[in-house]
Amino acid sequence: MSVARKIKASISKSSMIRKMFEEGAAMKKKYGADKVYDFSLGNPNVEPPEEFKKELINIAAEIIPLKHGYAPNAGFPETRQAIADKINREQGLKLKADNIVMSCGAAGALNVIFKSLLDPGDEVIVPMPYFVEYPFYIDNYRGVVKFVKTNEDFSLDIEEIEEAINENTKAVLINTPNNPTGKVYTEKNIADLAEMLNRKSSELFKSIYLVSDEPYNEIVYDNVFVPGILTAYKNAIIAYSYSKTLSLPGERIGYIAVNPDIDRGNDLQNAFIMCTRILGFVHAPALMQRVVARLQDAKVDVAVYQKKRDLLCEGLARAGYKFAKPQGAFYLFVQSPIPDDVEFVKMLLKKNILVVPGSGFGGPGYFRIAYCVDDATIINSLPGFAEAFKECS
Amino acid sequence: MSVARKIKASISKSSMIRKMFEEGAAMKKKYGADKVYDFSLGNPNVEPPEEFKKELINIAAEIIPLKHGYAPNAGFPETRQAIADKINREQGLKLKADNIVMSCGAAGALNVIFKSLLDPGDEVIVPMPYFVEYPFYIDNYRGVVKFVKTNEDFSLDIEEIEEAINENTKAVLINTPNNPTGKVYTEKNIADLAEMLNRKSSELFKSIYLVSDEPYNEIVYDNVFVPGILTAYKNAIIAYSYSKTLSLPGERIGYIAVNPDIDRGNDLQNAFIMCTRILGFVHAPALMQRVVARLQDAKVDVAVYQKKRDLLCEGLARAGYKFAKPQGAFYLFVQSPIPDDVEFVKMLLKKNILVVPGSGFGGPGYFRIAYCVDDATIINSLPGFAEAFKECS
Repeated sequence: MSVARKIKASISKSSMIRKMFEEGAAMKKKYGADKVYDFSLGNPNVEPPEEFKKELINIAAEIIPLKHGYAPNAGFPETRQAIADKINREQGLKLKADNIVMSCGAAGALNVIFKSLLDPGDEVIVPMPYFVEYPFYIDNYRGVVKFVKTNEDFSLDIEEIEEAINENTKAVLINTPNNPTGKVYTEKNIADLAEMLNRKSSELFKSIYLVSDEPYNEIVYDNVFVPGILTAYKNAIIAYSYSKTLSLPGERIGYIAVNPDIDRGNDLQNAFIMCTRILGFVHAPALMQRVVARLQDAKVDVAVYQKKRDLLCEGLARAGYKFAKPQGAFYLFVQSPIPDDVEFVKMLLKKNILVVPGSGFGGPGYFRIAYCVDDATIINSLPGFAEAFKECS
Repeated sequence: MSVARKIKASISKSSMIRKMFEEGAAMKKKYGADKVYDFSLGNPNVEPPEEFKKELINIAAEIIPLKHGYAPNAGFPETRQAIADKINREQGLKLKADNIVMSCGAAGALNVIFKSLLDPGDEVIVPMPYFVEYPFYIDNYRGVVKFVKTNEDFSLDIEEIEEAINENTKAVLINTPNNPTGKVYTEKNIADLAEMLNRKSSELFKSIYLVSDEPYNEIVYDNVFVPGILTAYKNAIIAYSYSKTLSLPGERIGYIAVNPDIDRGNDLQNAFIMCTRILGFVHAPALMQRVVARLQDAKVDVAVYQKKRDLLCEGLARAGYKFAKPQGAFYLFVQSPIPDDVEFVKMLLKKNILVVPGSGFGGPGYFRIAYCVDDATIINSLPGFAEAFKECS
């Protein structure tokens, strides 16, 4: 055996998202790209905002000594200060640059966070359904995932989380707005979680960290309020990415932010820096750090996504599908009209529609639609969705 | 305890390089930057080649649909093909795009390689002195480092490596041109290593991989020949970075390349892709992948470094220092005139000279000078070096 056993086992299971993606590529070759309705990947089809394009061109041309040289492992102080300032403006907190560590997107941030926090056997509580990569990120550092169910509307079930907490619990990992459900946790839901975590931390004489994965933080609709996690809970750690806000998931830029009063803040900061270094990130890409420092108020046109959500929700509701209308992100988590979601996804495949079975996200009986696609893809897919539904009734 | 125990322990030891770097920053504030001779960090002071600047500006301005969107985990096929073509041209091999996986620099590549290869307890042989981060990269995946000594001229001691090999050996990790010694292993030295590894692999009925870390591959002097590791050994894996060739260490772009006939090549390729994904890199930064695809023949002006090497070597030899003149990279590994290298580094500090003790690289009795600095820094530091040497005699 030459490849690590664990990795070989993981590969053979592989990601359902990636399988659908490959299936899609083959189908597009066969039928033509416009005849295949690919909702499998969360790869935003909206272009970055104009300000981004301008700043990138500016910075590419500017003369800055050693512009592409090494940055500090934590990131450039100016970039971190700009981010701290923005969070402080929006959430009335007092973060300093030292409360921010730049990362290679939210995926990089989460790996750094878990390597920093987890001793072997430490438990991380993850509400279902969840982003498919979380179990890997936790297992990478020999942490143990404890899945808990959510309420029917995908809000956090505080009692379920409380029951899962024990002396091995190191963190609770949430994702809001949520992938795959599009759920935005309410202020009340988050406050209840914080109250319970504070109580359990006291009971168990330990810090339970709340890790909040927030790449969709600014992709929200209907003026829904997104409560600030750092404001709600002292031991909160944010994993943020510009992938969706600025539509640049390929550039791998994001950050870790902590509440300035977090327990053992200094140790944590040092651990984040150390882990950024030794995991081989070294630091977040320098050029993008310079770009995002100047773009704290820029974001993609969210109305474009809202229109897609509405098109899709109306069409699917008309066809008879059941789902909780999402208020954020660009995913719709739909009840499968038959209990076996993998089977139903295969039925949709026959209509040239690619979605991902909910089973892959710990949400069997559902399927995920990533609607960050052309409006035409949505509109032209609706007859196929309707036919598949009818075939089940 | 809230931070992972292992990370906390590592932080308290910290990196000697980083300590010197921080010491340097404080001294520069106190004495003025031009009065401090900082040779502590391998942060190239040579600007990227003009072609790079041009292509970056071009690509920033070009209209490419979803230019900043997700790339495949392995990297863009065009970029990987351009790299395979270049290696084939130079080394007469037949790599395909599939033999390349793009990475976040060599540090990212090595993490992906070791996560892909190592089961807990697997051993990796590392010749001393070595790049300070290697033990972390191996330990991250519960591998065990076995250090072996090199010959007096820092060439590989094949017998020492052979003696260290046993049934737990998964890989040998070399670095050529070498950091901290500047050594470029000769064709004979690499051929002897390959012969021995082939023999031991047969004896032990297992594949022993040769991992070659090659960020300095094109930073060589005196027309020295750099033997191709992929040509020399079937089970060879290259970790490459554009950090030094194009002087852009901040942009975190590099690749993994394997011999097309490597044992279990398909498994390895899948493992590299999977580990790139789950370690949170997801893929190498997209913009830089597009840039380097067009710059396979560009490199910084190596003559600039050669001049620095010569200035430094002449000056130090005149002062009485002993060292093996390096033929590559931009490091000089110098014998400390007193046995205690940490003590001697402190003496140099009093002359406002910052270098790193060899102990940090597994080379006690030596110190490392990173000469990727202004010529003036080298010239103005020489009296201080001479004085410190005199004080020891």
